[in-house]
Amino acid sequence: MKLHVGILGATGAVGQKFIRLLQDHPWFEISFLAASNRSAGRPYGEAANWIESIPLPAKIASMIVQDCTPVADLDLVFSGLDASVAGDVEMAFAQAGIPVVSNAKNHRMDPSVPLLIPEVNPNHLALIERQKFSEGGFIVTNPNCASVGLTLALKPIHDAFGVEAVSVTTLQALSGAGYPGVASLDALANVIPFIGGEEDKLATEPLKILAPLETGSTPEVSTLQFPISAQCTRVPVLQGHLECVSVKLSSPADSEAVRKVLESFEAPAEIRRLPSSPERCLQVLDEPDAPQTRRHVGAGDGMTVSIGRVRPCEVLDVKFVVLSHNTVRGAAGGAILNAELLAAKGLLHHRAATLAAQGS
Amino acid sequence: MKLHVGILGATGAVGQKFIRLLQDHPWFEISFLAASNRSAGRPYGEAANWIESIPLPAKIASMIVQDCTPVADLDLVFSGLDASVAGDVEMAFAQAGIPVVSNAKNHRMDPSVPLLIPEVNPNHLALIERQKFSEGGFIVTNPNCASVGLTLALKPIHDAFGVEAVSVTTLQALSGAGYPGVASLDALANVIPFIGGEEDKLATEPLKILAPLETGSTPEVSTLQFPISAQCTRVPVLQGHLECVSVKLSSPADSEAVRKVLESFEAPAEIRRLPSSPERCLQVLDEPDAPQTRRHVGAGDGMTVSIGRVRPCEVLDVKFVVLSHNTVRGAAGGAILNAELLAAKGLLHHRAATLAAQGS
Amino acid sequence: MKLHVGILGATGAVGQKFIRLLQDHPWFEISFLAASNRSAGRPYGEAANWIESIPLPAKIASMIVQDCTPVADLDLVFSGLDASVAGDVEMAFAQAGIPVVSNAKNHRMDPSVPLLIPEVNPNHLALIERQKFSEGGFIVTNPNCASVGLTLALKPIHDAFGVEAVSVTTLQALSGAGYPGVASLDALANVIPFIGGEEDKLATEPLKILAPLETGSTPEVSTLQFPISAQCTRVPVLQGHLECVSVKLSSPADSEAVRKVLESFEAPAEIRRLPSSPERCLQVLDEPDAPQTRRHVGAGDGMTVSIGRVRPCEVLDVKFVVLSHNTVRGAAGGAILNAELLAAKGLLHHRAATLAAQGS
Amino acid sequence: MKLHVGILGATGAVGQKFIRLLQDHPWFEISFLAASNRSAGRPYGEAANWIESIPLPAKIASMIVQDCTPVADLDLVFSGLDASVAGDVEMAFAQAGIPVVSNAKNHRMDPSVPLLIPEVNPNHLALIERQKFSEGGFIVTNPNCASVGLTLALKPIHDAFGVEAVSVTTLQALSGAGYPGVASLDALANVIPFIGGEEDKLATEPLKILAPLETGSTPEVSTLQFPISAQCTRVPVLQGHLECVSVKLSSPADSEAVRKVLESFEAPAEIRRLPSSPERCLQVLDEPDAPQTRRHVGAGDGMTVSIGRVRPCEVLDVKFVVLSHNTVRGAAGGAILNAELLAAKGLLHHRAATLAAQGS
Repeated sequence: MKLHVGILGATGAVGQKFIRLLQDHPWFEISFLAASNRSAGRPYGEAANWIESIPLPAKIASMIVQDCTPVADLDLVFSGLDASVAGDVEMAFAQAGIPVVSNAKNHRMDPSVPLLIPEVNPNHLALIERQKFSEGGFIVTNPNCASVGLTLALKPIHDAFGVEAVSVTTLQALSGAGYPGVASLDALANVIPFIGGEEDKLATEPLKILAPLETGSTPEVSTLQFPISAQCTRVPVLQGHLECVSVKLSSPADSEAVRKVLESFEAPAEIRRLPSSPERCLQVLDEPDAPQTRRHVGAGDGMTVSIGRVRPCEVLDVKFVVLSHNTVRGAAGGAILNAELLAAKGLLHHRAATLAAQGS
Repeated sequence: MKLHVGILGATGAVGQKFIRLLQDHPWFEISFLAASNRSAGRPYGEAANWIESIPLPAKIASMIVQDCTPVADLDLVFSGLDASVAGDVEMAFAQAGIPVVSNAKNHRMDPSVPLLIPEVNPNHLALIERQKFSEGGFIVTNPNCASVGLTLALKPIHDAFGVEAVSVTTLQALSGAGYPGVASLDALANVIPFIGGEEDKLATEPLKILAPLETGSTPEVSTLQFPISAQCTRVPVLQGHLECVSVKLSSPADSEAVRKVLESFEAPAEIRRLPSSPERCLQVLDEPDAPQTRRHVGAGDGMTVSIGRVRPCEVLDVKFVVLSHNTVRGAAGGAILNAELLAAKGLLHHRAATLAAQGS
Repeated sequence: MKLHVGILGATGAVGQKFIRLLQDHPWFEISFLAASNRSAGRPYGEAANWIESIPLPAKIASMIVQDCTPVADLDLVFSGLDASVAGDVEMAFAQAGIPVVSNAKNHRMDPSVPLLIPEVNPNHLALIERQKFSEGGFIVTNPNCASVGLTLALKPIHDAFGVEAVSVTTLQALSGAGYPGVASLDALANVIPFIGGEEDKLATEPLKILAPLETGSTPEVSTLQFPISAQCTRVPVLQGHLECVSVKLSSPADSEAVRKVLESFEAPAEIRRLPSSPERCLQVLDEPDAPQTRRHVGAGDGMTVSIGRVRPCEVLDVKFVVLSHNTVRGAAGGAILNAELLAAKGLLHHRAATLAAQGS
Repeated sequence: MKLHVGILGATGAVGQKFIRLLQDHPWFEISFLAASNRSAGRPYGEAANWIESIPLPAKIASMIVQDCTPVADLDLVFSGLDASVAGDVEMAFAQAGIPVVSNAKNHRMDPSVPLLIPEVNPNHLALIERQKFSEGGFIVTNPNCASVGLTLALKPIHDAFGVEAVSVTTLQALSGAGYPGVASLDALANVIPFIGGEEDKLATEPLKILAPLETGSTPEVSTLQFPISAQCTRVPVLQGHLECVSVKLSSPADSEAVRKVLESFEAPAEIRRLPSSPERCLQVLDEPDAPQTRRHVGAGDGMTVSIGRVRPCEVLDVKFVVLSHNTVRGAAGGAILNAELLAAKGLLHHRAATLAAQGS
């Protein structure tokens, strides 16, 4: 029997990606779609302007969109809400005892909320116990769409050599801005060298994710302190954030050694067994002009981060190019992998408990 | 009476831009078009696949394309030749006494050849006297299309604070690869994180251009030694190279001080009077999302370099965004400005001298 | 002394194009900028999100945007208003005695309102006398951005051979949808085969414009009756509507004869003397792959319509390709040409009359 | 045991698509890759510039590319050869007894060669018996990438009402031109209203495909005679040819009746059972702005043709929009479906026969 999951912000671009990726999911079944008042009460097929390239499943189309208020019969909600409303709504669901797996930025840097990439910091899940919601409710978040690729690339390097500084320029896809997002007259044949709030997220989120879990009386994560300088640009591609990264190492290493730790990186076995886990979470490409956004963004069904051009840096120590799928690995797919980890660890049992309570 | 100029590589993308920019030029008149054997002997209108957005001028269309061999009746040739042939052909013209103003890379780093941006290093023209060609022939070059914007931006910073290191990621236009250049299936909705040879040029050319002229017994330019790390990418825009730059300074300065020296930079008065000189060679834009490639590439008819987002850098000292027009400022327009400087300094008199010698 | 003109809807995409094209206009000077309540009261530079590729002129930037209510000191207003508000606002200005030159669709098919292309039906201006506004106010309109190219191409054919039926498929630019208009996720690497209301306009507007003026007791235009079938699509180009047209003729003619009447078409001399009139309103291109949207859209500074590939049609009689600039010829530029014709005919004297009446 | 298939022109764009679509094919296994002399003798991974978005399979990468000369051990070859060489090479394979399933245009209109769309004219396979090649060799072709969508859409209409005339404008993807194909400077933000030879193919191929098979002493197909007028354009999309079609009917019918026959069309049951057959070969979409190239091109894994906007036509009788995937349904996928039909009909047994002959 599958777990019952809901989607908050179901009509938006991220919400639609959740729906697409959850079709035929072995563990999860969509039983609740919620969105703003504008959509609530209408069949999903009417309320949503479906932009995915597969047809909207008929069963989803006929579901009535609900308000974003907690209902009992859920094991989990995914949140693709806009940051302007996500904070309070997610809190309300958690307080109602429902686990929230969120893609929104609001709670990411909260000391009691895991900012989670299963291949990187699964032990940060321990932070959940610091959340004081009733009946097993809690919030887990995944990183910003541009942070996740950078952080996955930095993980093996930090483990092997230590990272002292990072300079990164991003070339981000239009889908990162949601729908309708960027106007076509701004996008076509143009580069916009600014994305509001993005550079700050790149400068901070990896420092929390890569930090060790301190397990004293209460679990704690003290963010690391090395500087990350980001310049974020929007380029006319549809899917895929490409990042040109330079790294200063704590322990000297040549670029071939860095290339090797990237290539040999593997997620823990318990992560690799999760349904949405790609065969490899990192792949190193050796063609001189790879990774390319459109060619390689689909690797591992959008869950594999591609790295290329690992070479010495004249100013810091090593530089390379990273590509990740911003709406799969960087949003809905990352959140689903987080939820799978929660399920595997037995942390999702809200509905069962509710049913049991009702039945007794 | 206008000077007679020739164009080598006249049928290529850069050659076509020379033709377009020289229409109605107050000092220069096209009297010679040369290209490869494939084109020689045919009317230009037939030999060239005209890709500029203005109609091909009828007078040019009917000119017969010549071989790339020197003829007497020229004051100057512009070279838009491919690097595979430019080296020898340009040498032959210079040896025939004809000044060569080249956009090709072949002679740029030759110690006796000026690598010239009139607003930055006009005194490097003194290197010409080291060239031992007969009858007044010499070679002058302009920088790579991506180097020129970076170097113009670094000039006032280096003068005011000293530059110790530079990290730059470029987002370069398709027109930088010439015609036919990049295949549309590689370009559309894609980023290619590699441009052959480009990162090396960015790492070396600014160091020559920014170096002081040493005037001992022979004029000399010792290239500077600070490190420049470049990551070059091709993005689906038509015109305009955008660069995300971070700089480490020799003398501490905050980003507002850097912004000010950029904004107040002016070319020497003798340069500002040249016909192709824009009102400002650098402009600082204060909108949060400027410069944008398509919006701002045409500033100063493509001769003004735009700078925006000057701000502190977490890893080096200051970072900002630079945009320059790759086929105008970065190719044909830059070369024409070089030629104007040569004319203004009285260095172009080959044909007059020839005519005089012929006794007429 | 220049005429004082106002712009209604000044902050929108068409309004911005009016501002750009009226810079340095020999006859007109912008003295009034009006827009919605959201913008009124603020300096234009703040109220408008300037999207033109030339810098916003400083004088315009500092003008305070007004409400869309008539003011005395104007000789003329241009309307770039959205159709949702244009009807009433334009009427109010006309009733206040101010000539309105509108790009909106609202009054185009009104029997007393000229739907004007100066090169095609200048005599339709006679309809103005049927408008019963006080003090010399009236409304003149220009056609839809896709109608204008089609109609200009049909004009010489209809004059020479008669048109019996037209089938047209359009490939229209993103700028035709205004700003923000089409979302980039809908536009990039996509074709949308639908533009709301557009096919109707193409099926009706040419029939009014090409109709003869009947000059009985009151001037009248009875729209023609031949069928026009349009299929309108949106394609990822920035500027320029390209149209694939097939025509059935009343009098038999081969395609070469049609090509000749297109090539030899000239506007009346009084029109050719207007400041915004291009050297040729129609040009026939003979390259096998012309006209191309990006290459040829700028012909005649956007006022020349380009035609190519005139050839026999297997189903109707002749077919060809038409390209016109949708925001210049098809919007602001067309309206300005209309206003120039009004000025040349002495129909603009509201302010002078007002001033005279005021006794100064 | 799978049939052994070869690919002629294996390194080109169509050849690569064959390789991709034949991965994990239930009936066919690639055992032979052939290309021009430039590639022959080298491992495929080196010889080909792989442009598909999935990784090149390792087994294919290591296969040595052969010359395009017949070898014994094959049941079938697919030809993705360029038309400049396809004619003779395909003939040579057929003469060597090897069935050729070709995507090239050379033999399409040959009276003894089936021009095949399995859902439309499977009985045309009978023409094979007119081919006089030894040992069971023959040639079967699939239509041009733009013809196939049009013909599939016309089939049910012609069956129900008769087609008297067709006018079609196509908006074709860049991938239709192969690789490198269209230069990005010609493609980006541009429309090219010309594709060499394409309009002729659209005007003739459907007339052969839709014609009845006449089964006298020898099977024969007399091409139909109604006129088809085509205007073909290249637009900046990656995959998918969209076509705006107008049709004159022999028997009067309103557009709703046409919509119904399109919607209810089904391939014969024997075709629907083929592995590459989509669930529906035609789908009618009722959204007002469908089909859209990028959104709907992947329907049925690229094998379903999408139709939308079925409505009355002011000039002919009915008009609508057709979208088909040009490199799947219109090239490699269509050819594979043809081969599956051949296999299902027991027409592929070259190798078995050869082996048997050798073994006895």
